[in-house]
Amino acid sequence: MESKAAVALAKNERMIIETINVAPPQEGEVLVEIKATGLCHSDLHGMDGSWDFSTGFPGLFGHEGAGIVREIGPGVSSFKPGDHVLTFIPHCGHCPLCSTGKTNLCYASFVDFLETSRVDFDGQKLYPFLGLGTFTNFNVFREMSLVKVRDDAPFDELCYFSCGATTGMGAALHTAKVEAGSTVIVFGLGGVGLNVVQGARLAGATQIIAVDTNPAKEAIARKMGATEFVNPKTVEGDLAGHLNEISGGGADFTFEVVGNTQLMQLAFECTKIGWGKCTIVGIAPDEARLEVPPTMLVQGKSLIGSPMGGVTGSQIPAMVDLMMDGKIDVASLITDRLPIDQINEGYDKMKRGEGIRSVVMFD
Amino acid sequence: MESKAAVALAKNERMIIETINVAPPQEGEVLVEIKATGLCHSDLHGMDGSWDFSTGFPGLFGHEGAGIVREIGPGVSSFKPGDHVLTFIPHCGHCPLCSTGKTNLCYASFVDFLETSRVDFDGQKLYPFLGLGTFTNFNVFREMSLVKVRDDAPFDELCYFSCGATTGMGAALHTAKVEAGSTVIVFGLGGVGLNVVQGARLAGATQIIAVDTNPAKEAIARKMGATEFVNPKTVEGDLAGHLNEISGGGADFTFEVVGNTQLMQLAFECTKIGWGKCTIVGIAPDEARLEVPPTMLVQGKSLIGSPMGGVTGSQIPAMVDLMMDGKIDVASLITDRLPIDQINEGYDKMKRGEGIRSVVMFD
Repeated sequence: MESKAAVALAKNERMIIETINVAPPQEGEVLVEIKATGLCHSDLHGMDGSWDFSTGFPGLFGHEGAGIVREIGPGVSSFKPGDHVLTFIPHCGHCPLCSTGKTNLCYASFVDFLETSRVDFDGQKLYPFLGLGTFTNFNVFREMSLVKVRDDAPFDELCYFSCGATTGMGAALHTAKVEAGSTVIVFGLGGVGLNVVQGARLAGATQIIAVDTNPAKEAIARKMGATEFVNPKTVEGDLAGHLNEISGGGADFTFEVVGNTQLMQLAFECTKIGWGKCTIVGIAPDEARLEVPPTMLVQGKSLIGSPMGGVTGSQIPAMVDLMMDGKIDVASLITDRLPIDQINEGYDKMKRGEGIRSVVMFD
Repeated sequence: MESKAAVALAKNERMIIETINVAPPQEGEVLVEIKATGLCHSDLHGMDGSWDFSTGFPGLFGHEGAGIVREIGPGVSSFKPGDHVLTFIPHCGHCPLCSTGKTNLCYASFVDFLETSRVDFDGQKLYPFLGLGTFTNFNVFREMSLVKVRDDAPFDELCYFSCGATTGMGAALHTAKVEAGSTVIVFGLGGVGLNVVQGARLAGATQIIAVDTNPAKEAIARKMGATEFVNPKTVEGDLAGHLNEISGGGADFTFEVVGNTQLMQLAFECTKIGWGKCTIVGIAPDEARLEVPPTMLVQGKSLIGSPMGGVTGSQIPAMVDLMMDGKIDVASLITDRLPIDQINEGYDKMKRGEGIRSVVMFD
């Protein structure tokens, strides 16, 4: 079948809006009509070449997709046409990683995704970013990359749970396990960082210090649960010293949600002696190195990373319920809804630091 | 009173064996007759100037002491003359660190220990290393720096629980929380590293790979519970690749017990994707920096440090019971017993990499 899509022909080029071909779902695959797809910074990293894993050209980017199942391939048992679904990292359930129950990572994430692509344009197969590819009205996904969700949740909010909202809240709730009454510092208030703030609030943290160089982020950070806002540009003198002072000697939990190694070092430094935990959520380039003073480790500080918030797909419906019950606020973070024809302009805004989350809507 | 002691007059000088003066115990202090005191590498770091915390000259080194209470100062309630005790890092129980129950670190470790010194030589106060100073037949300690232990345990084995044995076993059991059935790699088989091996065995680890460049360590490593021994000098090609191969893609738990940042990086690299935990036990110089690829953190690997095995003094008697019940073997690690007059020769041996733990015995 045909589908309207945004195609990235080459690295660093603007996407073109064209009609692509979508092959029918094969064994274990599902055809989904995408209703909404979020614009995440990670797609930009793939498009501009800063990441080279799970990326290729010509490529179909986008990995935050929510929509409706339209057709299932042979052997598909978890879905039927009409089901509302969102895309997520795969979880096969039986590989040496999945079967331990200790991680949300799965060997099915480490394959050549070109093999799994069912889309082509102008005679060429399109590389599906992260094995997904949601900047299209229709696409075929592996059954293990989809999560069934309730029918009454709006698609624009749902697609955010495919990555940003889940990664942020998961980092606080599942990876770091923020405790009630604790102190938290979040560095970087993008679409993920603000959800870390929200996750920390949900966990009952008493002090949540939100840090960003953009003063426009203060209001939304406070809305998400921040109790303090610090703009490093307006801090006189040593930023670490300032943060350690207002947190009473460092925070119980700190989060880096940018992907900048200098900031990761600062986040580690700003944890409390004895038990402070620094969680890395931001993705840095492969060649980046974080310089850690081992003496700080032996003071009891620890460093951990959070792949997709440490969440597996099966945990997402409960998070969607929290949203539908008004316990978490995703709608306030969606600052733009646009047709696919304006997707490049959406990324232009992101590059300028405007807005939080833009979502492409299909009719 | 007078006491025979080993005094370090200046940095990098050999200790001299002389008679020092010990003042009576003051409020909250206890006079102990030291019966046995271990030679730990940390004293060497203090004596040669690689560490500058909790160290000074002229100094009284030694921090692994076991002996008998001879006199108590006013207000001491936990001890009476005749009690068998060992020295340990202080735990006041009510400072902002202690009172959380989350750490074994205590603000009483961060004071100027010269103020607490009750020993002098030749008219000069001696700096008590780490606030202790056990290379003497008698010394006065703060009540919070002593742990009461059973009377029937031999002093030479007991003093090892003041640091080496406790740090090693604690790192495996309390900090990393090694799980039954897991895989473990221990880098560095000194007096602490071999106790990490022992702790991992006690926790039920299935595979324990012991790594050291000294082939003489293989036999004792296996006695402590190692299932494999790897000498990096005899591995052809990439050591990380070799270790990842024999551990089936990295270990669940790795430990660095040397204090070398290159080795710390290797230990981190050799953890399993998804949940591998690297515990730093070795103490590196203050200015050292560990280079961590943040992408490995976001693959779910974590990095944690273990101050004194994460153990508080109150947990030591149970470890001594394990020894007395034959569940752990400390005696095999004590390779030398010597009078205080030969303490410099004991450290010469350590520098040459001979033996595991030497213990100075007083009559």
